Amino acid sequence: MIGFGVIGYGYWGPNWVRNLVEMAGARVVGTCDLRKERLALIQARYPTIHTTTDYRELLKNPAIDAVVIATPVQSHFDLALQALRANKHVLVEKPLTATVEQSMILIEEAARRRLVLMVDHTFVYTDAVRTMRRLVEQGLLGNIYYYDSVRVNLGLFQHDVNVLWDLAVHDLSIMEYVLGIQPSAIAATGVAHVAGQPEDIAYLTCYFEQNVIAHFHVNWLAPVKVRRTLIGGDRQMIVYDDLEPSEKVKVYDKGITLNGGAEGIYQLLVGYRAGDMWAPKLSTTEALSTEARHFVDCIHNGTQPITDGVAGLRVVSMLEIATRSMAQRGQSVEICLERACV
Amino acid sequence: MIGFGVIGYGYWGPNWVRNLVEMAGARVVGTCDLRKERLALIQARYPTIHTTTDYRELLKNPAIDAVVIATPVQSHFDLALQALRANKHVLVEKPLTATVEQSMILIEEAARRRLVLMVDHTFVYTDAVRTMRRLVEQGLLGNIYYYDSVRVNLGLFQHDVNVLWDLAVHDLSIMEYVLGIQPSAIAATGVAHVAGQPEDIAYLTCYFEQNVIAHFHVNWLAPVKVRRTLIGGDRQMIVYDDLEPSEKVKVYDKGITLNGGAEGIYQLLVGYRAGDMWAPKLSTTEALSTEARHFVDCIHNGTQPITDGVAGLRVVSMLEIATRSMAQRGQSVEICLERACV
Amino acid sequence: MIGFGVIGYGYWGPNWVRNLVEMAGARVVGTCDLRKERLALIQARYPTIHTTTDYRELLKNPAIDAVVIATPVQSHFDLALQALRANKHVLVEKPLTATVEQSMILIEEAARRRLVLMVDHTFVYTDAVRTMRRLVEQGLLGNIYYYDSVRVNLGLFQHDVNVLWDLAVHDLSIMEYVLGIQPSAIAATGVAHVAGQPEDIAYLTCYFEQNVIAHFHVNWLAPVKVRRTLIGGDRQMIVYDDLEPSEKVKVYDKGITLNGGAEGIYQLLVGYRAGDMWAPKLSTTEALSTEARHFVDCIHNGTQPITDGVAGLRVVSMLEIATRSMAQRGQSVEICLERACV
Amino acid sequence: MIGFGVIGYGYWGPNWVRNLVEMAGARVVGTCDLRKERLALIQARYPTIHTTTDYRELLKNPAIDAVVIATPVQSHFDLALQALRANKHVLVEKPLTATVEQSMILIEEAARRRLVLMVDHTFVYTDAVRTMRRLVEQGLLGNIYYYDSVRVNLGLFQHDVNVLWDLAVHDLSIMEYVLGIQPSAIAATGVAHVAGQPEDIAYLTCYFEQNVIAHFHVNWLAPVKVRRTLIGGDRQMIVYDDLEPSEKVKVYDKGITLNGGAEGIYQLLVGYRAGDMWAPKLSTTEALSTEARHFVDCIHNGTQPITDGVAGLRVVSMLEIATRSMAQRGQSVEICLERACV
Repeated sequence: MIGFGVIGYGYWGPNWVRNLVEMAGARVVGTCDLRKERLALIQARYPTIHTTTDYRELLKNPAIDAVVIATPVQSHFDLALQALRANKHVLVEKPLTATVEQSMILIEEAARRRLVLMVDHTFVYTDAVRTMRRLVEQGLLGNIYYYDSVRVNLGLFQHDVNVLWDLAVHDLSIMEYVLGIQPSAIAATGVAHVAGQPEDIAYLTCYFEQNVIAHFHVNWLAPVKVRRTLIGGDRQMIVYDDLEPSEKVKVYDKGITLNGGAEGIYQLLVGYRAGDMWAPKLSTTEALSTEARHFVDCIHNGTQPITDGVAGLRVVSMLEIATRSMAQRGQSVEICLERACV
Repeated sequence: MIGFGVIGYGYWGPNWVRNLVEMAGARVVGTCDLRKERLALIQARYPTIHTTTDYRELLKNPAIDAVVIATPVQSHFDLALQALRANKHVLVEKPLTATVEQSMILIEEAARRRLVLMVDHTFVYTDAVRTMRRLVEQGLLGNIYYYDSVRVNLGLFQHDVNVLWDLAVHDLSIMEYVLGIQPSAIAATGVAHVAGQPEDIAYLTCYFEQNVIAHFHVNWLAPVKVRRTLIGGDRQMIVYDDLEPSEKVKVYDKGITLNGGAEGIYQLLVGYRAGDMWAPKLSTTEALSTEARHFVDCIHNGTQPITDGVAGLRVVSMLEIATRSMAQRGQSVEICLERACV
Repeated sequence: MIGFGVIGYGYWGPNWVRNLVEMAGARVVGTCDLRKERLALIQARYPTIHTTTDYRELLKNPAIDAVVIATPVQSHFDLALQALRANKHVLVEKPLTATVEQSMILIEEAARRRLVLMVDHTFVYTDAVRTMRRLVEQGLLGNIYYYDSVRVNLGLFQHDVNVLWDLAVHDLSIMEYVLGIQPSAIAATGVAHVAGQPEDIAYLTCYFEQNVIAHFHVNWLAPVKVRRTLIGGDRQMIVYDDLEPSEKVKVYDKGITLNGGAEGIYQLLVGYRAGDMWAPKLSTTEALSTEARHFVDCIHNGTQPITDGVAGLRVVSMLEIATRSMAQRGQSVEICLERACV
Repeated sequence: MIGFGVIGYGYWGPNWVRNLVEMAGARVVGTCDLRKERLALIQARYPTIHTTTDYRELLKNPAIDAVVIATPVQSHFDLALQALRANKHVLVEKPLTATVEQSMILIEEAARRRLVLMVDHTFVYTDAVRTMRRLVEQGLLGNIYYYDSVRVNLGLFQHDVNVLWDLAVHDLSIMEYVLGIQPSAIAATGVAHVAGQPEDIAYLTCYFEQNVIAHFHVNWLAPVKVRRTLIGGDRQMIVYDDLEPSEKVKVYDKGITLNGGAEGIYQLLVGYRAGDMWAPKLSTTEALSTEARHFVDCIHNGTQPITDGVAGLRVVSMLEIATRSMAQRGQSVEICLERACV
């Protein structure tokens, strides 16, 4: 039985508490939030869970083995570092930290203490995303041509981070997991429409050493909700629509065919191939339930989570560089994850 | 009765012939194509239309008052210039020419001879696009925040122009007409996946002096067809989906609200406002029919078409600059339409 | 503070408990279910709620003022009658009872004791359904022509009731509430595909004294989920799609126009009128929350609920007659709600 | 080279002329319509086709081998009979005739003269419908449970026939072709909302000796266009949506599973099975082109068309019986195609 402490009972905190409460082998010992009314809500729902406004109570509590940090980004590093130093396993909401430097320190601290450090890249634990990764790994798409993602809606305006840190974080973690490659450079552009507030709409492009392009559109000010990703390969292509109730992943047997003409490349005939479409059955298990199970398993077995500190670092690195590019009107910036580059 | 000659009977040529044949006040005197089998097809369909492989026959024919040029881009300038010099009114398929310089020469030639020079920015003649322009002009959207367009599908691979010149040309002409403002700088990025072929996927960003951003995604290699534009204003927002059979334009009474907090801008509360959605009734008249009518009216009245040479020039200019930016990995390039800048 | 007992913790029970737990002025005192594992689940979630396998414990408990009955249909009558006799206000899951006779007895018992008897016609408490009723009442649709509803999916196969009692119950209660008229006759037809099991697909038609037709398609064996209702009037028409995330109700300014010809009715010109479409903003408050609030208010004020026993009776009556018609291959059966007819 | 005469240049006539004009081995010799302006339109489009207001001119013309009859239903029988007697092969728009008796006479006349008699059940010549038939024939759906079709929109109000004869004719011919079985009884119900006009909304149910039910909803007064058919089998299910641009036929690997319980049928466990979805690639050849080709082939080879007189008769028979049932408020009527029954 692993004892859990949950810090932050805002948007994600309640989902973590609910999943941990109903998971065999886990027990929520205490939760923490600065707002009294949130604590009252926890009390009404789960009278046996200890509540506090002081997270240090949780860190001191020997019945707590692991801590879930579901607070604003700016506080992630400090809370996670203290939790690790208190010898707690740590799961942090995405993005892992506010800077690459911070992520690196957490990774080292966790490694030194042989503690599990995990980041909540939620979508990686959905069957849709896992299925896409499998299809790519097995080569069913052929050579990847592009990855195009749109995540827009009239969303909650964040004050502390721009729309890339709020929304693109999901898509970068999905892309990274599905394609299994990292970009070599990033360009981003965005606009802030409200004075004193961060960018509310942004476009991000990833360049790779391979002849692949990845592009992301994120927007807090869209009249409709769109969650659609296209992945094009030379053999097959995927449409991943997270708003579809059941057929979230559709695989199209479409591509291009090349026929060399008599006079060489100038006579090249580019044709199209269109075949069947296929939507694999997907499990509907809630991602957070799979993820909570995985966290517990990693703690038990001392294994590295799929979304470990390094996965978190890679996404933070992309966001950091994208923000830098956005400040230079989309000038592309090289990525370097060596310690020396930071 | 205005006599027409149509040069090029490929994709758009037949649509022009069909619309002109059935339009009162117009008569198709002759058509020209280099391919014998295309001429045979015209003969089968319209036995009374003169066919030829030599466009000069049409330019010499005094029964022909106006010429429609529906050939590949590279030939637009030369054919249009000769037609103007033969004192024919000229309508050219989009994009008007392959370079800004060429567009300028055509504009001057037409002006000197008092001939109508028109470019086929087809969508400008749809009721959907005209309705959006009216909504923007009347201020119903409030201050414009962004224009985001996606035009992708498994389309006909062009060998002579990249995907921007083939697809983005539509969206740039729509954007220009609907918003009524011109960008001050453009950045574009794209990838060619087939050796020796032009870019098949591209992203284009327009920057404006106003705090607006416009972004375009065009793609010849997408598994599904998407034709969707979002236009965000601070009062209302539009979703324009050209694939919708009837409600192509939806107006959402959504926006953001700002409440200054006691401590000023740092306490600013950004809220959301969501109201009704409304889809205006749209006429289903074929755009080409409206456009052909407009061309004939301009010839009769000696008036300037909505999509005149200058409108064509502006779009060519954006495409030219975008292509230059694409060669520099998305480095943004300033736009200048003064003669001195070219 | 009203004390509640909830009998049945299957599909709807947990929703009732959750809503009552978080509602001001209400308290869930005890819940009952025959299955130990369900009681254990309640204990895990709400350690302070008393659980039992014997519903009589709840009926005897003086701290309980009102009872929610969320058990299979067959048990509704007996449980509700006992609850009323124990002087509890009663809310029963739809359909109210298994027979018209039973509904009548409950109505009389509740009236005699001045207790609130309410049936959970859930959709009546959604903003979508309330908005449609308002539009009809205000005459915006003009004369009603038809009501056509489809509710199909691969659903939970019921063993005790046929698909009409399981699914059409929703649509009959919505139709009755929105149109405000009752059918004079009903015809229904259906098929059972599994030996020994009730009908799994059925079609039901309601005839009215007015020139209106209502039709319902319900199906447990459909590959896709459909929840769509069309309501046609001579002035405007509605499409109500419960699966739409936000624009559930769309109002089309469409209809037919009649122009009498010179030679009278045989020369009548029937034309079509097509105008704008409009989707009113809908509140997203959970129906059960609105409904629970309404139940508590009725108890406090001694008023009749919108979905009172008589509303429940009317729906049960339609289902009873439809089932009779279904046994006669769709022969239509007159409806009579006078005591004498039963 | 087969010479064609086309009688009627209203809605379908132009489509037939266009397809025959461009088909190798066919030639349109003459067309007939009572309206001068329609003849003028033909002249403008096809100056070499002879036009007349007197269909007898076409029947007398020895250059005409085959006649396409695209006139209102009431005239089908008389025109077809005269054409057959003039030794012309005949293709008649759906429905074949206005009565079963008339269809029988035409079938006999064509058989006696060894002429091809074909009915234009257009959808039978689409790849979507042919693919569904193949899937059913190959047993991929397993035992068929139901066939449910919806064909509604704000359509052209017909004065001479009710909505069943106008719209359900399509679906009955599709159902008959795909399932390969004929109903044993039919029930239909409908309403006329405009005084003096035929029913504008109707529901039709087919009963079969097998445990299958087929149901059709047709409606001229719907605010939206729907063309959707569900076909349920115990192994797989189909959704056929004719408005989908490319994936018109989707095959769902869904069904029900039965597990006998210890105590026999009352303990039967009905479970659900959900697997992948699959959309076969469909050819986009225009149905009328395939059909015209087939007509010409049948004439050449003296073979029976897929949609021969008997197929036409079967559909007319269903419509006739449905209309009779509709007059009796949905009372089901047995079908009998023996001569003796008529």
